[in-house]
Amino acid sequence: MDTHKQLTIGLFGFGVVGEGLYKVLQQTPSLKASIKKICIKHPGKERNAPDELFTTDKDILLNDPEINVIVEVIDDSKAAFEIVSTALRNEKDVVSASKKMIAENLTALLDLQQQTGRSMLYESAACASIPVIRNLEEYYDNDLLHSIKAIVNGSTNFILTKIFEDKLSFKQALLLAQQQGFAESDPRLDVEGYDAVNKWTFLLTHAYGILTSPENILFNGIQHIDASDALVAKTKDLQIKLVAQAQKLNSGRVAAFVLPQFVRQDDHLAFVKNEYNGVVIESGFADKQFFYGKGAGSFPTASAVLSDISALRYQYKYEYKKLYHHTPHELSDNFYLRVYVSFDDLKNVPRERFEWIEEWYAQEDRKYLVGVVSFQELRNNTWWKENNNSLIVAAEGVIEDIAIRQLKKKSLELAGIHVN
Amino acid sequence: MDTHKQLTIGLFGFGVVGEGLYKVLQQTPSLKASIKKICIKHPGKERNAPDELFTTDKDILLNDPEINVIVEVIDDSKAAFEIVSTALRNEKDVVSASKKMIAENLTALLDLQQQTGRSMLYESAACASIPVIRNLEEYYDNDLLHSIKAIVNGSTNFILTKIFEDKLSFKQALLLAQQQGFAESDPRLDVEGYDAVNKWTFLLTHAYGILTSPENILFNGIQHIDASDALVAKTKDLQIKLVAQAQKLNSGRVAAFVLPQFVRQDDHLAFVKNEYNGVVIESGFADKQFFYGKGAGSFPTASAVLSDISALRYQYKYEYKKLYHHTPHELSDNFYLRVYVSFDDLKNVPRERFEWIEEWYAQEDRKYLVGVVSFQELRNNTWWKENNNSLIVAAEGVIEDIAIRQLKKKSLELAGIHVN
Repeated sequence: MDTHKQLTIGLFGFGVVGEGLYKVLQQTPSLKASIKKICIKHPGKERNAPDELFTTDKDILLNDPEINVIVEVIDDSKAAFEIVSTALRNEKDVVSASKKMIAENLTALLDLQQQTGRSMLYESAACASIPVIRNLEEYYDNDLLHSIKAIVNGSTNFILTKIFEDKLSFKQALLLAQQQGFAESDPRLDVEGYDAVNKWTFLLTHAYGILTSPENILFNGIQHIDASDALVAKTKDLQIKLVAQAQKLNSGRVAAFVLPQFVRQDDHLAFVKNEYNGVVIESGFADKQFFYGKGAGSFPTASAVLSDISALRYQYKYEYKKLYHHTPHELSDNFYLRVYVSFDDLKNVPRERFEWIEEWYAQEDRKYLVGVVSFQELRNNTWWKENNNSLIVAAEGVIEDIAIRQLKKKSLELAGIHVN
Repeated sequence: MDTHKQLTIGLFGFGVVGEGLYKVLQQTPSLKASIKKICIKHPGKERNAPDELFTTDKDILLNDPEINVIVEVIDDSKAAFEIVSTALRNEKDVVSASKKMIAENLTALLDLQQQTGRSMLYESAACASIPVIRNLEEYYDNDLLHSIKAIVNGSTNFILTKIFEDKLSFKQALLLAQQQGFAESDPRLDVEGYDAVNKWTFLLTHAYGILTSPENILFNGIQHIDASDALVAKTKDLQIKLVAQAQKLNSGRVAAFVLPQFVRQDDHLAFVKNEYNGVVIESGFADKQFFYGKGAGSFPTASAVLSDISALRYQYKYEYKKLYHHTPHELSDNFYLRVYVSFDDLKNVPRERFEWIEEWYAQEDRKYLVGVVSFQELRNNTWWKENNNSLIVAAEGVIEDIAIRQLKKKSLELAGIHVN
């Protein structure tokens, strides 16, 4: 009955997450997992663990036959990939929290897992404490998944909450996020959406069997959100969130992007404040399900790493069922988005390339429009994130290709223009 | 790589869930699971499936060597137990949605699983579409689980929501729940808390390794909730929910009960309306996590059954880790509850047996008090659910044994009584 594997861990990284994990493991003796060695970059620092645990030589961990699990929580994605791939080749299981590394090397990592038969788990890389990968793998493992919408970056959500609710400026809010340890060491990774799109890259694999790379997913962060945008949202009783979205279209393909979005107050995502993350999964027969938890911070991340370590005792592996055992889905460019664009100067917005415009608003210092634009237009151009333009997707903003003609006709009729 | 098991299903029951499952399976060809035979009780009825699928002879399913999975979604818990235990003994895996049967036969079912080595899954019996068992088993599989609070009965939550928000009477709300298919065939099972405590019985096993029976858990339903209680809640900006709760005490033991509770507006459970269920898990390092989804209805239940069927393809079993691989926790009687009790006549409330009383309120037709009472008092007596008394646990109402003396002193001092 007892199929436990005894775990002897080699840990890479002793920053907030690494140290958090060390503490968590000490308080979880039932796990029977022990850290044998910790590889660090800078040996000089004072650390809250016995000196003899530390080394700066990665090979001491990677070549130790007694170490059967490598846990990697370092910041450098290039070094992380080298560590992880060597570990897998050296017949060790791997737990990683490096979203950037995973997103950028997804295909290679999948190949390595298949070649070596080892397990690589990275739940903490997705939404820290929310077990979203595990549930997509195990529970939503059929082809009934309609859509998944998520707030996957705690730092930007924290900033947006502080701007909205505590009326902080963007700068103040960012500083506060950094002080509380929610922000990446390079804040642009969070603020400009890189972190979110990295996570979305591999979540698309677990959700839909889509194998892509971050460059291939349309994304933006919150760096263009203007104070006036927050005002507009308030007037319309909406919130602004950085939402990662994937949605099955009628064609069977998947619309996916990471963009700021207006969110209705009764949307589950509106419930997600501060550094929390939230995932709304809509599936065939279960309707909407909502997962919510801390998405950033050392302990929530460490606790997810801990659950992965624990799962290794039972030889758990991601099966990537939707990729290997189903017909994987493909991304689509063939849909439309209803978007809000605010701007300083209309000449920076190519309004003629909108399908139609539904709303205009102009004040002296800031103007906006709401209109429908093809996804391809956004993919092929960058005007919407240049010249102080700010684009926010409307609530429920995805419009199917097949619906566009009728909607356009209706919209033009509303404007008094009749077409056949 | 392909470790799928081909699934040939024998289905017991073709009520709303059984028929839902039949439809869901037809729309999920990727599952490669087929229903070979359906056992029903009443052969005469018109059914939306080919005649040759049906039989009234359970042995045709249970003795068919080709059938390797028995799915049981019938209403009769005695018959269900017989079917399930025979199926396990006949080397078939089992998926069951019968909470009552599982709760009442938990020990026997655990023994059977160990003896036969077969898998028995029953995710749909807990919170329908929310994968709570799976997550307790796999993700919160360590000893860091502080507490779990949940709304596990969609029907009572629907009724409470309709009373609170749409100002329906209890009767009207119950009728509506029945019309929409959220209520058990015997509404008392929902309304009086039996369904919730049944679910809580086996969720305690997955959460804490506690093996108990429904009679051993203190519970009540919502049948005593008075219109005046709803008014009090509104005045205090609280909601009333039927909450199943388990919480690790400082002693290491677990306080567990299913009772109506006041819930603050910012409590995650306040978010849970209508037939939805919600689970708030507080664990050592991840802080609070919230799972939310449809907890009643044919399709959400069928979709959970489907996920269990799907998991069988990968030979998934519950490991009951906390029971077998950890030191299981035990239930405690040694704690106190802050409670609100409304009553028609004070003589029906033994106020001298309260530790102290914090609040009195008397109007002509209805009166209430708020006070602190030992859990043992509630366990050993029934006054609190008799004579039209209505007991509702205060928000965050659990008080640890070790905290009681100091709190009592403070409370008496506030009342002007000084003690040493």
